[in-house]
Amino acid sequence: MQKNRKVFQGNFFEDFHLGQVIRHGTHRTVTDGDASVYLSLTGARHALHSSATLSALLGYPSKPFDDLLIFNIAFGKTVPDISLNAVANLGYADIRFVSPVFSGDTLHCESVILGLRENTNKKTGVVYVRSTCYNQHDCTVLSWIRWVMVHKKKETSHSTENYVPLFDSFVGTDQLIPTANIPSRDILDEWCENTCSTTVWDNFSVGDTIVHPSGMTIEEADHMQATRLYQNNARPHFDEELMKDTKFGKRLVYGGHVISICRALSYDGLENVISILAINSGTHVNPTTAGDTLYARTEVLDKWKIPSRSDVGALRLRLLGYKNSPTSSNNMSNQKIINRDVKSELVLDLDYTVLMPKKQN
Amino acid sequence: MQKNRKVFQGNFFEDFHLGQVIRHGTHRTVTDGDASVYLSLTGARHALHSSATLSALLGYPSKPFDDLLIFNIAFGKTVPDISLNAVANLGYADIRFVSPVFSGDTLHCESVILGLRENTNKKTGVVYVRSTCYNQHDCTVLSWIRWVMVHKKKETSHSTENYVPLFDSFVGTDQLIPTANIPSRDILDEWCENTCSTTVWDNFSVGDTIVHPSGMTIEEADHMQATRLYQNNARPHFDEELMKDTKFGKRLVYGGHVISICRALSYDGLENVISILAINSGTHVNPTTAGDTLYARTEVLDKWKIPSRSDVGALRLRLLGYKNSPTSSNNMSNQKIINRDVKSELVLDLDYTVLMPKKQN
Amino acid sequence: MQKNRKVFQGNFFEDFHLGQVIRHGTHRTVTDGDASVYLSLTGARHALHSSATLSALLGYPSKPFDDLLIFNIAFGKTVPDISLNAVANLGYADIRFVSPVFSGDTLHCESVILGLRENTNKKTGVVYVRSTCYNQHDCTVLSWIRWVMVHKKKETSHSTENYVPLFDSFVGTDQLIPTANIPSRDILDEWCENTCSTTVWDNFSVGDTIVHPSGMTIEEADHMQATRLYQNNARPHFDEELMKDTKFGKRLVYGGHVISICRALSYDGLENVISILAINSGTHVNPTTAGDTLYARTEVLDKWKIPSRSDVGALRLRLLGYKNSPTSSNNMSNQKIINRDVKSELVLDLDYTVLMPKKQN
Repeated sequence: MQKNRKVFQGNFFEDFHLGQVIRHGTHRTVTDGDASVYLSLTGARHALHSSATLSALLGYPSKPFDDLLIFNIAFGKTVPDISLNAVANLGYADIRFVSPVFSGDTLHCESVILGLRENTNKKTGVVYVRSTCYNQHDCTVLSWIRWVMVHKKKETSHSTENYVPLFDSFVGTDQLIPTANIPSRDILDEWCENTCSTTVWDNFSVGDTIVHPSGMTIEEADHMQATRLYQNNARPHFDEELMKDTKFGKRLVYGGHVISICRALSYDGLENVISILAINSGTHVNPTTAGDTLYARTEVLDKWKIPSRSDVGALRLRLLGYKNSPTSSNNMSNQKIINRDVKSELVLDLDYTVLMPKKQN
Repeated sequence: MQKNRKVFQGNFFEDFHLGQVIRHGTHRTVTDGDASVYLSLTGARHALHSSATLSALLGYPSKPFDDLLIFNIAFGKTVPDISLNAVANLGYADIRFVSPVFSGDTLHCESVILGLRENTNKKTGVVYVRSTCYNQHDCTVLSWIRWVMVHKKKETSHSTENYVPLFDSFVGTDQLIPTANIPSRDILDEWCENTCSTTVWDNFSVGDTIVHPSGMTIEEADHMQATRLYQNNARPHFDEELMKDTKFGKRLVYGGHVISICRALSYDGLENVISILAINSGTHVNPTTAGDTLYARTEVLDKWKIPSRSDVGALRLRLLGYKNSPTSSNNMSNQKIINRDVKSELVLDLDYTVLMPKKQN
Repeated sequence: MQKNRKVFQGNFFEDFHLGQVIRHGTHRTVTDGDASVYLSLTGARHALHSSATLSALLGYPSKPFDDLLIFNIAFGKTVPDISLNAVANLGYADIRFVSPVFSGDTLHCESVILGLRENTNKKTGVVYVRSTCYNQHDCTVLSWIRWVMVHKKKETSHSTENYVPLFDSFVGTDQLIPTANIPSRDILDEWCENTCSTTVWDNFSVGDTIVHPSGMTIEEADHMQATRLYQNNARPHFDEELMKDTKFGKRLVYGGHVISICRALSYDGLENVISILAINSGTHVNPTTAGDTLYARTEVLDKWKIPSRSDVGALRLRLLGYKNSPTSSNNMSNQKIINRDVKSELVLDLDYTVLMPKKQN
């Protein structure tokens, strides 16, 4: 009478339908412990998430979590239903950070299928999905769009639904929700003492480039621990037996960890970034695997005032992550690295918008 | 006048006596931070330990710790006195999870020697011990029996005490203490939304087999961090110099970490397990070392109603852990892996009892 | 109009001046999560930091952090300004642990330049600096002196300031601030039950040597996670590309992690150490890199009563850390290892003072 029970192994392309709503499992209470583990895995130094004294001055009831820690946890919730059978994560768009998250909050996520497009090879299709993360009060914490190439169950099946949604290329200033306040010049001074930098919104110009000097080598234990912290169970990150015969030859680093590492590296030169308001778009250009050393460079794409706010402004930034190619002055001039063809070394191209203090006037 | 002070290096076979009570050191206050580190090292997704909102619905004052995190911490306390000079951990029996543990609780442990048997080689003996873990209110948290092969100090010494205790092959339903309550159908629904599975106690049959699809490759940093988190100081897990000339050739993964990993892998297909009630018996069939990839399979051994409870039931499960031998459909059919000789790949054979929601009727 | 923004890459020798005060950035709120990560990276077992029940008995409002965790976090704050362009950390002196730190405290640091000495090679100079760490109430938590060899910007520049300060060889008993109290014999007994050792201050003699039996192999992920936890951004610990062409050939383990590991290893034989009162001096004799296995030995240098205290006393200890050379009885007699030339294997030589319970009489 032995019976093999069927285990849910994620949805295939045929399982998705336009307008379908999926409620994701594994609700998660986040704690200070998660912030500590995140810190030890990324080395993040952004001031708002490091000092409770400072976050209180900016009007928060307690120290808010790093936006990318919350993004990665929320993303992890969607993996079992959306991307367990993914060939590749093709891109992100319209990621909006709406409410801060504090220790003790419980997060849950929901997704809606926005678009479906079968590939001509009949083996795969692209799924466009908007996911939203809520806290225990059902307030939206963040929402994001991604599109993923997913395996079909059968070549012979075909989808009657074919719809490719269009997205804005960036989140407009009217959609940005800055939750930090810098109520006085004294508090701006205190902020700047924390960051040891007086380079604020006013000092940046469109076209500015920042070559971040540090590099970070990725270990298998590091990226797997990060990905498990996010309760993301996508197998290519964890199973060497599964991966050793693929074209990658080894486990892949979860893209969200690459974003977190590049963002931590970007601290030097962008010390006064308060928080992330939005991610406009993003691509993992090449895979990252253990042993790679990551470097980062930022370009200032745009510079916006925020409606009715004189204390803070927004910068639209392009964060480029490279592997095994130091951007610091150790091996080559900064100019060289910026100009030469580094396409094969590019692992991340992220267009995002940050909040930064502004000299009030 | 230089003097080498003697350092306590654990008990040898001759140091143990029948009925001897040993109070273990290093009392430990457990915190949310420990839960976060455990999560990052195992990827555990069981709902009760992930969401404080959900654990409140089931009647807990706050989010209880994962049973195996607590077991491993408690076990760690006993190592300096019981198994620092162990050749091998031979087996476990009668592990009972009695009270939930919450952030801020302080744990301490005590052991009593139940049995002693000298081996015919005169070099080692087997020690049978029951250990009990208490919280700061001296309430029992869990208790367990294990037997360990321990070195003798001298071949010429011999024990006059020889007693091998008998243990029940499993913990009976009258001894199980389910601390979770599912007071209504609404709360069952909320639970199932958290796990994305409606497969509850009623749906399982004795003889069912579940092949868990995921695999987890173990790194040295991962298992050492876990074992240090448990303050377990057994040297074979940490000292490469010590281990490189042994038959293993390298550090050994602590067996409790193997259990934690296999249990985390077993989430897929057993999403609605609430908590562990008991471990009936367990053996580490083969050693695990860094670089091994673990896979897991579960067999339903028995299915019990719990006296006077209609909301929850118990399942007796056999959790089998394999190394370097994918159980998923990637490389071979599930049936094949179940039937073929995998003895050399088997690392864990654990007989345990879990609590699961039951459709009330 | 593209412009490369200049990124602050730390001070060079010419940037320092005698009496200069530097306020360091990245204020940090420390939490229980940090303690858990520290535990998982070091395996620390000292009783005061492990049990909140016990720390309450000794008069603390809650469980104080491990002194070395706080030292390493405080040290990390000074790296961007003091030692980002360091050739080597030459030594420590006069480290005083003044106030305990509790979960939720926010730390910030300040340094003053005590001395400057240009090297004859014209390429580097030595900077002597006293750094102080404060909590959110501006109470001093700890202070320390270190001297660092730092690169000059140009060979042609030269400093007119040349001053080498003199330091006391140890922190005197009148400067030690024991924050623990053992108010009664009952509490001493409870303490000793926690440590499973009755060997207290009274039992040690000057000249005693303790060979700690355990060893710990260091992984890249372990030391990088520790160093990131401390928000220490010194590049040689993280960037394999940068380091592979240096004489070390690979990333270097941060010296503070070496101290933490050796101190954790020193638990066996020094179980009753309550806390660290001072570090008198310290040197990293040889570099440590991933793959090294560390062992530790302690010599009792001195034994002091503490003015007006009968419940506790101070021991001045020399902690020696070795790599790849077991000090346990596995491979060689303890005596052998103590006498033979182990200079090339010595990684740490630390002279420090600890607090230990004393039999009241």
